[in-house]
Amino acid sequence: MKNFSIAKSRRLRSTPYTSRIEKQGVTAYTIYNHMLLPAAFGSIEDSYKHLKEHVQVWDVAAERQVEISGKDSAELVQLMTCRDLSKSKIGRCYYCPIIDENGNLVNDPVILKLDENKWWISIADSDVIFFAKGLASGHKFDVKIVEPVVDIMAIQGPKSFALMEKVFGKKITELKFFGFDYFDFEGTKHLIARSGWSKQGGYEVYVQNTQSGQKLYDHLFEVGKEFKVGPGCPNLIERIESALLSYGNDFDNNDNPFECGFDQYVSLDSDINFLGKEKLKEVKLKGPQKKLMGVRINIKEISLTGSKDIYDENNNIIGELRSACYSPHFQKVIGIAMIQKSHWEVSQSFKIQVNGNTINGNVCDLPFI
Amino acid sequence: MKNFSIAKSRRLRSTPYTSRIEKQGVTAYTIYNHMLLPAAFGSIEDSYKHLKEHVQVWDVAAERQVEISGKDSAELVQLMTCRDLSKSKIGRCYYCPIIDENGNLVNDPVILKLDENKWWISIADSDVIFFAKGLASGHKFDVKIVEPVVDIMAIQGPKSFALMEKVFGKKITELKFFGFDYFDFEGTKHLIARSGWSKQGGYEVYVQNTQSGQKLYDHLFEVGKEFKVGPGCPNLIERIESALLSYGNDFDNNDNPFECGFDQYVSLDSDINFLGKEKLKEVKLKGPQKKLMGVRINIKEISLTGSKDIYDENNNIIGELRSACYSPHFQKVIGIAMIQKSHWEVSQSFKIQVNGNTINGNVCDLPFI
Repeated sequence: MKNFSIAKSRRLRSTPYTSRIEKQGVTAYTIYNHMLLPAAFGSIEDSYKHLKEHVQVWDVAAERQVEISGKDSAELVQLMTCRDLSKSKIGRCYYCPIIDENGNLVNDPVILKLDENKWWISIADSDVIFFAKGLASGHKFDVKIVEPVVDIMAIQGPKSFALMEKVFGKKITELKFFGFDYFDFEGTKHLIARSGWSKQGGYEVYVQNTQSGQKLYDHLFEVGKEFKVGPGCPNLIERIESALLSYGNDFDNNDNPFECGFDQYVSLDSDINFLGKEKLKEVKLKGPQKKLMGVRINIKEISLTGSKDIYDENNNIIGELRSACYSPHFQKVIGIAMIQKSHWEVSQSFKIQVNGNTINGNVCDLPFI
Repeated sequence: MKNFSIAKSRRLRSTPYTSRIEKQGVTAYTIYNHMLLPAAFGSIEDSYKHLKEHVQVWDVAAERQVEISGKDSAELVQLMTCRDLSKSKIGRCYYCPIIDENGNLVNDPVILKLDENKWWISIADSDVIFFAKGLASGHKFDVKIVEPVVDIMAIQGPKSFALMEKVFGKKITELKFFGFDYFDFEGTKHLIARSGWSKQGGYEVYVQNTQSGQKLYDHLFEVGKEFKVGPGCPNLIERIESALLSYGNDFDNNDNPFECGFDQYVSLDSDINFLGKEKLKEVKLKGPQKKLMGVRINIKEISLTGSKDIYDENNNIIGELRSACYSPHFQKVIGIAMIQKSHWEVSQSFKIQVNGNTINGNVCDLPFI
């Protein structure tokens, strides 16, 4: 595939770590929440192998926060997500589909409950802040909505636990998955969650004190040599093999949570009030007509820049491939596709055009096994 | 400046013209409304000269539409903008700052009135659709809000009038600035406005019939040879020289319309209802404390990737430079900066660090003269 440069400007915001990752050899960016998100440091496959074996520090400042605080903040946050947050606890992260009045997805953030009246919505790539502002204004909610200065750095990979213990002490290894707490680095408290956009384990540091965060970034590389620490970023291969879905890639505002396999996060039976609840009841009653599934394709290489139609043996379109990569683990191309109900049978075979050739593939359940 | 690749994926949407512009030599992209927007075809200065002399066809599909229709559509659209639309006419475009409840800018679209109950908000780079959906839901407005399939191609430059006349006939030259009408191309009607993101004159074709739009794209190049038609895109130099402001670059959700010189679009004296009206009355009463101004800097080259602080002779920060380029017309670097009230005097001198050197510059009014 031909390479195109990214034209930088203030509108594509840099992060506090940009100058560091550029010295460390970042080669490609994507844009996420109007911000630079590193997408490659040379070979994605080499990075994938390193991530699965060692530890990486990622500049994921593009995972922006929408901070909602004030008397009506819990009501507004609940209105935006179909997941029941009535029993949510301070110090915990919650994966929460954000839904519009049509029952379709606006975003799929992790929501952090900082206090009874203070929340961070750690967003995927859409302007949830304006959705929240519109709702708050229309409902005359007593809330304050801002994008705070928070620039996340992620520490991911099997050796992330040892590296973080070396910096923050034993206590950080006791943090449960999707729990967060405050940890001291050279006199500055940092909010750190056990989370991250890989399945290799790790942490996310929600950096509010930029200067201390930059020092921490450098420190992790200084003391991490014994763990073979390296720079990295969310890895296309790892995230597809792990079936971590991506808003905008695998689903968007034309899809509903049942079509994306988010059933466990849709609390239709509770008496909580959220947008699209009636629409989602209808969808559930009728059953979704399409859903995200895995696919395996009998080739060794693919470079997907958009959706690609999938056909049955009679050349009828039965779905569309939305993300794909060569998987070293499965030794073929795998991907995530939206498949029509008529063709949900596992091992359903299909055809797809890649570089002018007709290739065969098979549908499978997610996650891949 | 070092070049970085853009990592393409479905999330960074391609347009119906992407394969064409890649054959025509696009070299750099930016991302705008989650979509590829071409940023350069080789030298930006060569493109600038060509645009000012001949005619270019631009893939600006990234200027997405938010379509608002239904009984309460006029009320919702008015609620979102501080510009009085009560006397707006079908067939006209209106430049309209979109304002939140704090009186700050959400976007600065052109709004097209298609019908008494149907509007297109032709947006700059933020998800206005979710702001509209939030407001509509909170206010229980009877409206339908969608992003329709509309992929704008712009025809810009002094010879755009002759080229478009050759394709669409005499009638298109009678279209007034910011007027729109429907014109036939090989049996398909296209909405065409006399508008565009340059000051060199031209049109924007709001393509709904993708196939016909692609044919039109090719046709413009076939019949445009006599006008030296070329591919192009919004040009950094031309837009700064013309003082065309860019949401995200020159201003954002931390700025209000008075700080951006949008006074003529703020209808505080009318009895219309819009968000942030009381806040903006306060701002007007007190007077803005910062505003966008032009700057001239005594160097021949700059490459801005973010804001850059501007200092007075005592090294106090007096503002920040937000966009800049070398201007062939002024034969020095010019730019757009947010300047604190204490230093609004025209020809105010300042200092700025560029590539480690301290450079002098002067403040001036916008537009540049």
